[in-house]
Amino acid sequence: MTTIAAPLDDRFGLDRKVTLPGPLRLDGGGVLASVDIAYETYGSPNADGSNVILICHALTGDQYVASTHPLTGKPGWWTRMVGAGKPIDPARHLIICANVLGSCMGSSGPAGIDPATGGKWAMRFPVITIADMVRAQAMLLDHLGIGRLHAVIGGSMGGMQALTWPTLFPDRLESVVVIASTARHSAQNIAFHEVGRQAIMADPNWRGGDYYADNRPPSAGLSVARMAAHITYLSEAGLTEKFGRRLQGRDAKTFGFDADFQIESYLRHQGISFVERFDANSYLYITRAMDYYDLAEDHQGSLARAFERTKARFCLVSFDTDWLYPTSESRIIVHALNAAGAQASFVELSSPFGHDAFLLDVPELNRVVDGFLRAGERG
Amino acid sequence: MTTIAAPLDDRFGLDRKVTLPGPLRLDGGGVLASVDIAYETYGSPNADGSNVILICHALTGDQYVASTHPLTGKPGWWTRMVGAGKPIDPARHLIICANVLGSCMGSSGPAGIDPATGGKWAMRFPVITIADMVRAQAMLLDHLGIGRLHAVIGGSMGGMQALTWPTLFPDRLESVVVIASTARHSAQNIAFHEVGRQAIMADPNWRGGDYYADNRPPSAGLSVARMAAHITYLSEAGLTEKFGRRLQGRDAKTFGFDADFQIESYLRHQGISFVERFDANSYLYITRAMDYYDLAEDHQGSLARAFERTKARFCLVSFDTDWLYPTSESRIIVHALNAAGAQASFVELSSPFGHDAFLLDVPELNRVVDGFLRAGERG
Repeated sequence: MTTIAAPLDDRFGLDRKVTLPGPLRLDGGGVLASVDIAYETYGSPNADGSNVILICHALTGDQYVASTHPLTGKPGWWTRMVGAGKPIDPARHLIICANVLGSCMGSSGPAGIDPATGGKWAMRFPVITIADMVRAQAMLLDHLGIGRLHAVIGGSMGGMQALTWPTLFPDRLESVVVIASTARHSAQNIAFHEVGRQAIMADPNWRGGDYYADNRPPSAGLSVARMAAHITYLSEAGLTEKFGRRLQGRDAKTFGFDADFQIESYLRHQGISFVERFDANSYLYITRAMDYYDLAEDHQGSLARAFERTKARFCLVSFDTDWLYPTSESRIIVHALNAAGAQASFVELSSPFGHDAFLLDVPELNRVVDGFLRAGERG
Repeated sequence: MTTIAAPLDDRFGLDRKVTLPGPLRLDGGGVLASVDIAYETYGSPNADGSNVILICHALTGDQYVASTHPLTGKPGWWTRMVGAGKPIDPARHLIICANVLGSCMGSSGPAGIDPATGGKWAMRFPVITIADMVRAQAMLLDHLGIGRLHAVIGGSMGGMQALTWPTLFPDRLESVVVIASTARHSAQNIAFHEVGRQAIMADPNWRGGDYYADNRPPSAGLSVARMAAHITYLSEAGLTEKFGRRLQGRDAKTFGFDADFQIESYLRHQGISFVERFDANSYLYITRAMDYYDLAEDHQGSLARAFERTKARFCLVSFDTDWLYPTSESRIIVHALNAAGAQASFVELSSPFGHDAFLLDVPELNRVVDGFLRAGERG
């Protein structure tokens, strides 16, 4: 196990941000001369530094995995999984979660400052990939003096990063947990993202991405993008159970275009509240990174080859009602891991909540993750 | 059988439009003093007028079922089903298809003229329902002197109209063909439509619907609405087969935001070409009518009760990859028909094309419709 060196930062703790010297060479050919990374940590390193868990967040997630979001004031997005007595526990683990490259909560991205000009990057930020996000995370670990991870874990886009880790840094981690995710974006996945991007870019306030100066962002377009995406996070049965055709606070249809149905009101709320915490350009960049994601493509078309060099253990979890990244996508990953001789466990959990289940109260998920992590800790 | 009276129009034929005296009382409480209906006919009535087939079109369909679209120059939208030697054949049937109330190809709708003011209706047009559309169709049949239909047939929203016919006019038709449709709009169905409406209304060119005077319609918003809806018309497997992750006319990713993938280019084309032939306000009104649609709700929550008074025969067809109106929705209808003692045949066909299959080349669909119609004609 690698010993954790004295971090350049003077303490582990919350709401940290560092500017790391580059260059970070990107898949698209560009170079970032330096990289800002905003991150949170919970817990402390143990004596041999063998208890470090990196959590990777999803498309619209952030580093506030188990701490209050500074803009919304809401609790962290994964307090069901991370916290005292939870599978990932600050009493046992040093937990790190960094805002992904391209996002808008402090890490380098279109909403950040281009050091070469002192102005906002906007659409002059280079297009990035999931692998670029992972390379930036590795730079952060270097900076923190962390050589090796006990585990990398993520759901949805977080799962894509977790799955990419052993392909780029096969010797730097012991175990990988991939929840409700995929090894490539399908045509339908790309299609939904393209609708969102077109909604943003069709908003006259977008202005080619240069909307920061007067603080008039393309909120209407971003809101529509979020609404469309949000449908894909929920199952048809879940929507029927939660909303059905129930009307919103009234007895009868209004025969108008206000939100008559609860589902309309709910979706509008999802759109409106999203624009208060997220940057439209970041949404463009991160969806693009997800659409470009195809691990097999990066390894001569063979997903098994991607995992050839790693000794990590893998845990895959899918949900039976997830139609965004259905169980069949997890099965493809498991088959490739088997072909590569990797140790892989896989379970499809039952949940009515569709893709969003990985964020919700699914006790089975906690049991699976807990059991998998503890097995590695005993070893 | 009813004898066809001399029609008020001087001939059956193509590209017809009539203004029918009202009032047409609408479900929403409003009244249309008169109703414009644009329609096409093919074939001639037989001696006893027993060969009339009414075709109902889908959300973005029109009356040009088997004739060239005047704006796009494209062939009719159902030439696979309607034509010489097809299941619905002008040599054997008098075929009628009318532009639905609320649409934009000549029938009364927001893009039409409010006779009270002489100006465009725009959003002052009353909100309508599927049943209102059917009542307008019945007015057209009255005008044409057609008392009774051999069959009413439709796919998708056309199926909703076909299914509504026997509930409003139980004695006016012998048979009903409902393809890839449903007896109610689900929460997920409503959600997708709400995204489309929000995309249109978020477009600054929409201006509360009053965009006709300067001919600057909310094309960007309507295009996004169409793109989002179009994804729901196709199956995930069909998208993968047709597009997969193939790039558009280039060898490598551009690391930009142009349409890199074929699926992106295809969706953008769907959006752009749609706005050239369709009115954004009509899209709002018709999607609203579909979302309000719930046949059981209109009959004290009992779908079986809706069909109690009819003697019509029913033919239901679903497609196994249709996730917009899945087979389970057709089954609900069949169970209700059985409970009502109605004669119903039902088949789920296999097709890779998702919901759109009803418009495509599915020989099995033609055989089912042909067999069902001929069985009625022998009787």
